[in-house]
Parts: sequence; C-alpha cells; structure tokens
Amino acid sequence: MARVHNFNPGPAALPLAALERARDELVDFNGSGMSIIEHSHRGKEYEAVHDEAIALVRELLSVSDDYHVLFLQGGASQQFAMVPMNLLPAGKSADYIVTGGWSEKALEEAKIVGTARVAATTAVSGRYTRIPRKGELELDPNAAYVHLTSNNTLFGTQWFDFPDTGSVPLVGDMSSDFMWRKFDVNRFALVYAGAQKNVGPSGIVIALARKDIVEGGRKDIPKIFRYKTHADNRSLYNTPPTFSIYLVRNVLSWLKDQGGLAAIEKTNREKGRVLYETIDQNADFYRAPVEKESRSFMNVVFRLPTEALEERFVAEAKKPKMVGLKGHRSVGGIRVSMYNAVSLESVQTLTTFMKEFAKTNGAKV
Amino acid sequence: MARVHNFNPGPAALPLAALERARDELVDFNGSGMSIIEHSHRGKEYEAVHDEAIALVRELLSVSDDYHVLFLQGGASQQFAMVPMNLLPAGKSADYIVTGGWSEKALEEAKIVGTARVAATTAVSGRYTRIPRKGELELDPNAAYVHLTSNNTLFGTQWFDFPDTGSVPLVGDMSSDFMWRKFDVNRFALVYAGAQKNVGPSGIVIALARKDIVEGGRKDIPKIFRYKTHADNRSLYNTPPTFSIYLVRNVLSWLKDQGGLAAIEKTNREKGRVLYETIDQNADFYRAPVEKESRSFMNVVFRLPTEALEERFVAEAKKPKMVGLKGHRSVGGIRVSMYNAVSLESVQTLTTFMKEFAKTNGAKV
Repeated sequence: MARVHNFNPGPAALPLAALERARDELVDFNGSGMSIIEHSHRGKEYEAVHDEAIALVRELLSVSDDYHVLFLQGGASQQFAMVPMNLLPAGKSADYIVTGGWSEKALEEAKIVGTARVAATTAVSGRYTRIPRKGELELDPNAAYVHLTSNNTLFGTQWFDFPDTGSVPLVGDMSSDFMWRKFDVNRFALVYAGAQKNVGPSGIVIALARKDIVEGGRKDIPKIFRYKTHADNRSLYNTPPTFSIYLVRNVLSWLKDQGGLAAIEKTNREKGRVLYETIDQNADFYRAPVEKESRSFMNVVFRLPTEALEERFVAEAKKPKMVGLKGHRSVGGIRVSMYNAVSLESVQTLTTFMKEFAKTNGAKV
Repeated sequence: MARVHNFNPGPAALPLAALERARDELVDFNGSGMSIIEHSHRGKEYEAVHDEAIALVRELLSVSDDYHVLFLQGGASQQFAMVPMNLLPAGKSADYIVTGGWSEKALEEAKIVGTARVAATTAVSGRYTRIPRKGELELDPNAAYVHLTSNNTLFGTQWFDFPDTGSVPLVGDMSSDFMWRKFDVNRFALVYAGAQKNVGPSGIVIALARKDIVEGGRKDIPKIFRYKTHADNRSLYNTPPTFSIYLVRNVLSWLKDQGGLAAIEKTNREKGRVLYETIDQNADFYRAPVEKESRSFMNVVFRLPTEALEERFVAEAKKPKMVGLKGHRSVGGIRVSMYNAVSLESVQTLTTFMKEFAKTNGAKV
C-alpha cells in the first residue's frame, strides 16, 4: 500500500527517508555483516552513530557546552519522577504550571517524591483551552524549580513565549514539540522530550541538562536515576536502546538535510496556518475550543456539530488515506497531529477534505 | 558483506529471519501504509503485536496465570533499583547472592534504597570462577527477598539448579540466559531480563512477576516505578518501546518455529559441549578459569598463554568472519557469547579456528 497521511499523536509519522535508510541497512549495517541492532554499544560502529546523534542535537539547537545532551529510557513519564528525585531536596518545594493532562501527571509524581505546588493552572472543569497569561503565574521565588509542558497534545495548546523564572531553574517537558523550531535552550535548566513525536521512535528520551543542575543533583537516589550517572558516561552507563538512538540519528540527519529548524519551522507554521484558516473559515461547522494565541502547531483539536458527524469524519477520511484523526478519549472530537514528518501536502489533503465534508454535511445539522 | 559469526556479548546476534521480517515490512507494516514504528500504541495493529509477544512468552515458558508478563524500560540496571523500591520495605532486609559484576551492581543499588546483605559470594580477589554450592548460602529466613543473577556474562558462570528459598521470594536477573532453555517459573517470585542477549534489541526488559508480589508492592514510590502500574495496564501505562517489542515478537516467533525451548536448549548444549571440549583438549594452550560445574552455556571465557596471543587470536579470527571475541575489559582474555541466535555452525567455525590457532602458535610459547 502507498504511504498514508499519518496524523497519529505519537508514536507518529517519521520521515520516509529515515525509515528507508533503516530498512536498506537493517540486516547489514555499513558492510559490517550484521545489523546495527546486533552491534555492541561499546563498539566503534555504534559509538559513531551515538556520537553523531548527540552532535546533531547540539548542532540543530545550538546547544552550548554548558549542557549535557542525554539519551534516557522510560519515556517522559519516567522523567515526571526523575526530575523531582534529582532536583527536589527535602525542605524545598517545586512549582508546577499545569496546562493539561501531562502536566497533571508530572505534578502527581512530584508530590509522591516531595513537596510540589501549582504555580498556575488554566483548567476549567478539567479542560484546558489556553496557556496562562504572564500575570497569572504565582511563582515561588524559593522554588527548587519551575516545571512546564511546552505543548499539550491532548488539548492542543502550546507555549510560544516561555516565562522568565529568574534564578529559579526552569524545567520543560517538550515531548510533543521538541525541535518543531529552534528555541533558546539557555532559558531552561533542563529540557526533556520523548522522541516519538518529532524525532524518532518510542522508547528513547532526549534531555538537555545544564551542567550545574546535573552536578548539584541528589546523591541519595539509585545511581541509575541520577542525571549525573548518564552525563558522566555519555549515556553509555548501561546498554542504551541502540536502535532507537540510531533512528533518532536518521531523523535528525533528515532534518538537517531539509535545512534544519528554520526550514522546518517555516513548514510547520504554514501547516498550522492552512489548517486553522480552514477551521475559522468554516466556523459554523468546525469549532476550535483553544484560544487563538494558545493554538498549537503540533496538535490541532476541533469539534464538529455532533459526535455522529465526528465519527463519520474519521471514517470518510480513510478514503483519501488519512489516519490518526480521532481525538484523545479523554477529550473527544478530532485531533490532527502534524509533527515534523507530516508534509504540507498531507495537511492540504486534509483541508480539501474538510471543506468538502463541511459542504456536504453542513446543511444536515 | 555476508553475515558474520557474531559472538557479541550483548547487544548480540539476532536470528536472520527476525531481522529480515522487520526489514521487509519496515516501511509498510501489514499493508497499513506506515511502519510499525509509526503506529499508535493504542491502535489495533500495534496491540495485536504487543499481545502476541506476551502470549509467546507465556507459551514458550509455560507461564501460569499467577504471573504477569511485563515489558519495561531502562534495562536490567533499572531493575536493580526497581526491585528494592517495590519489594524492600523499611525495617526489612534483602539477601543478595553475589556471583559477578552485575550482582554487585544490583546489591549496590539495593543498599541505596534500603537494607541489603550478602547471603553468599564466590569472589576471590574480585574474580568469580563459580556459583555457590548449596551449603554456602547463608539465607536470612526473614529476608524481604533473595536476589540472584542466573548467568554471569563477565565471568562465564551460570546457575543450573536454583536454590530453594522456602517462603522467601526469589528474584532472578536472567538478562543473559533468559530463554536459553525452559525453567520452572514457579520457583521465582520475579524474573527480569534485558532482551538484548537472547530475545531482542536493547531497550526492552521482560519481567515475569507473581501477582501477589505485584499487589503487595510499595505504594510510596513514583507510580511509573511500581510493577502494579505496568501490570494493571498490560505494559501500556505509558508509551512502550513499540518497535523493540515488535522485534521481540519476531524473535520469539522464530524461536517457536525452531521447536521452542526444548529444541534451542539442545542446540545450546551442543554448542557448549563442542566449545568446552575444544578448550579441554587443548588445555596446554587454552585455560578456562571457571569450575566445570559452573561453566556457562551462554558466555565462555578462556585465556591464552599470553596477552599478545589473545590479541592475535581476536585479530586473526576476523579472517573467517568471527567478531565479538574480546573479553570484557575488567576480565581480559577471550569471551565467546553464544546466545540463541548463534548457530552451531558458527561455533564449529570457531573451534576449527581454535585448533588450528593452537597448533600454529602453541609451540612458540
């Protein structure tokens, strides 16, 4: 079957070039007579891939030498626990800015590890339609750190202007919009991102960790959970998920070939513009609950007049080979995830379908 | 290049059939128009793979309904911490049987989490040449659990008769010999194994967890680290490493096609017989430090008369396409890892080479 238009929320679409490269050398990597999966993580063939992946992260985001680039396991969900385990000592409190389901989960884990408070929340009856405005943040100047979720996959909101937390370290979960554009890494003490949206397969987390944060981390936790352990060993303390890192390398290599983050941001902004324009021009049929200034470029959520129409929308979209459009079960409606590997052409296929669908079904409401 | 004879200690050789299956459908899984890597972990295509992998573990090892089969991240090294976090409450002590470098690391993490003691060790000046004999175990009848490492990759020793710990739960790290043969799961309360030796790529751990252990686990630890969280959600609490689990499925499916664990044990025993026989018949040249009754069928370690000869051995072995033979840096010498995917033919290629090498170089010593 020809490739579909894949709007999955994650695991999600990957660049075809990255997949084909993996396919072509899956059984014989670089003429070594074995798969990259079968190579030792201590061998020179794998280490070259590992180092290239780290170098690509550094290059694409202009990560300075003040930061370690780490590859970790366990997904962002494990970071929800590892962040407070490392950075939240007894007697201190951490601030959480809650903007969706994933922020809630991060806060929940922090409360098990230590003391954590809500510095801001935009929840209204359990739903989120925006990012907090500047004046709404009640930051504790003595907090161990401030935690935010840069993009909210469930509710389709996204931060565009990160808060200034002064001397309090800022920690960002960027799982669903990492590398959608360039950002100033220096604003953060720690950034972590599950790879399975923009940069690779599931099962691998990329973290950018400022060296002082790593050195100052708690030592009374198991060694495997200390950022310092992984930083001191170039993420080779224990066997890393080698094939996942290899795939991240392939994706980042593709990203660089596309012109890097400036180019991908341009495409991502155009994808967002086209889709939101279609929604707004058919506002009697498609309803976007998110406030305009918080609209995510990664996950676009909208509702149709009835749930029956939403079901039909998802079903009929399969004909022009579009999949992954059903909203998260906790939110409902339609969700269009359009990470870096989703082409403008795929989004245009969708908007053409949306206009036609509204025309055909609009009168029946 | 033609496939090499891969004696890597892990990540290690995988069955060619499992890799080719992955290659052939890497870009288009089952005619879905996308890679399995791009499928949602909540979609029916991936879930079928996930469930099949669990079912194959159950079937191959005859795992009863008293146990959960779990897929976890972070490698065995993360289990070194998760085991005591879950199973070692304050006021209790855990017993560790120390038979090598990995047992030492497991003990080290347990001591950070709680109270742990050495129930037996076979270390002599930091080296291990055998598994403890029955009378040597000093088990604490009130221990929270007893932990052992079933196969020691660094030193080449292996357990063949697991100790009876009575009512004290037995926990086994089987990373390097999981599924080398069938074993009685019911002897254990918990078994965990990093997949990257016998059953898949790195980045995925398979655990067999008795339900009472899971239910009785500590609740004061982060949710992501509780076995119960993963058991309650069929290892889909957070996004699992989907492609890694898919590869495990491919490997286990191959294993079943080979005739299952009875067949693979037969081959593994023959591989061990042939290799140890070659060592013993050339005992003036090859020296195996491990006591005969503790000799591992997975990792065979031996020394040559001089380090210079060991280097030449590794270098010349590359001509008949044999790789991965260098001993672990902490042990030195030669290590032959021959997991399930290493064929008897590969081992015979090695023994032919060994005989020739001893003949050519033996007189020079």
